[in-house]
Amino acid sequence: MRHILIIGIGAGNPEHITVQAINALNRADVLFIPTKGAKRSELAELRREICARYVTRADSRTIEFAVPVRRTEGRAYIESVDDWHASIAATYEALLESELADGQTGAFLVWGDPMLYDSTIRIVERVKARGRIGFGFDVIPGITSLQALCASHRIPLNLVGKPVEITTGRRLAESFPHRCETAVVMLDGEQAFQKIEDPDAEIYWGAYLGSPEEIVISGRLADVKEEILKTRAAARERVGWIMDIYLLRKGADFDE
Amino acid sequence: MRHILIIGIGAGNPEHITVQAINALNRADVLFIPTKGAKRSELAELRREICARYVTRADSRTIEFAVPVRRTEGRAYIESVDDWHASIAATYEALLESELADGQTGAFLVWGDPMLYDSTIRIVERVKARGRIGFGFDVIPGITSLQALCASHRIPLNLVGKPVEITTGRRLAESFPHRCETAVVMLDGEQAFQKIEDPDAEIYWGAYLGSPEEIVISGRLADVKEEILKTRAAARERVGWIMDIYLLRKGADFDE
Repeated sequence: MRHILIIGIGAGNPEHITVQAINALNRADVLFIPTKGAKRSELAELRREICARYVTRADSRTIEFAVPVRRTEGRAYIESVDDWHASIAATYEALLESELADGQTGAFLVWGDPMLYDSTIRIVERVKARGRIGFGFDVIPGITSLQALCASHRIPLNLVGKPVEITTGRRLAESFPHRCETAVVMLDGEQAFQKIEDPDAEIYWGAYLGSPEEIVISGRLADVKEEILKTRAAARERVGWIMDIYLLRKGADFDE
Repeated sequence: MRHILIIGIGAGNPEHITVQAINALNRADVLFIPTKGAKRSELAELRREICARYVTRADSRTIEFAVPVRRTEGRAYIESVDDWHASIAATYEALLESELADGQTGAFLVWGDPMLYDSTIRIVERVKARGRIGFGFDVIPGITSLQALCASHRIPLNLVGKPVEITTGRRLAESFPHRCETAVVMLDGEQAFQKIEDPDAEIYWGAYLGSPEEIVISGRLADVKEEILKTRAAARERVGWIMDIYLLRKGADFDE
């Protein structure tokens, strides 16, 4: 039977990798590396660098592959993601069939942690459910951008004994500031924070976390909103792409 | 000036440690290791094992210290935590003063990630605010029990595009299942899940995650509730203590 390892490799700093992940990389006969097109070639390059640095066995093969693009036109969000996952599952199935022999172990390298706003686990489950290829799989956790954000700002995620919501830009308005005192926003193409008008809200923002390009800004949201928008736009222009994340907070430890 | 490193060392598996954390451990002149009393001596032992395995410089010193106990009688929760933190801050200050020379680096080893339901960052900030000892500090992220839980169950934390709430046993009733579809409960002395009656709720539970004692149970909450309560009580009796965490979910990917 084939075996698959879904390995979290951290948020961008090659030193985020765990000993468990390094050992898993070295158990793999085949390393599958997605190349996401020219715009983010630095990310493919960083995956290659991680393999070069930590893979010590000489006989493993690296297979690069193109990830299908998500089609959004004329589709609702859910439908477009569902179609996209089906298409990636077909790609994975073809890869496993052609590149991984029976009894071999293959690894998928995932930014951050496979559990958090990443679909590799559910796509691998789809391939399993299709039933054409039999395999087992394991998941290896990795440092997420959420953790890199808190570490760079040197802040706790939660207030003492209080809950935290992790959400997306599309859904931020549902939660912060009325439903929770701490919200972390992970997928945000529209900079949803700019619509929040609460005078007591604070923001901790970061882009390219863990990489040499890392930028962090924090302060009262009303005071730093414009600076973040400008910095973000300029960085995106300069680098060609951006990955950012932020934490919004209202209140303090030991408030009743 | 003194420097402090607050290092996340993972959730119990010594292989959870990151390369960044290993390098940080080796930058420290002094490693501060809390011993939490006889009951959890395995945890102090595991910290010692991590140091023995990954600290390669020969000239660093290890200082073990007792963490003050939280007093709860006659105090509200917030007040008792506030007093406790003040007491730990005084302990840290005394340690830094007596054990760390000017220009040296000291490390505090934290289970999981210092950002998540851990107070080392805010206690170190308190010591800074007291102003008696000048120092800088950095935070190194680590794998949390939340990540170990999802990895062991091989599940994504969030449903596609949906938010997640991380909360405590004391506050679970405020959020799940009416406010969120996924809740993770991290500090729960009362097994708050047993009060949830939703017939569609699923639970993914884990104890001693990442350690050889690891136990995981999952299923429909109504079906496995009793099994978890029994297993938890028996394990606690056998080991002498327990650390557990669980995820509650309602709904599925691609539900509208």
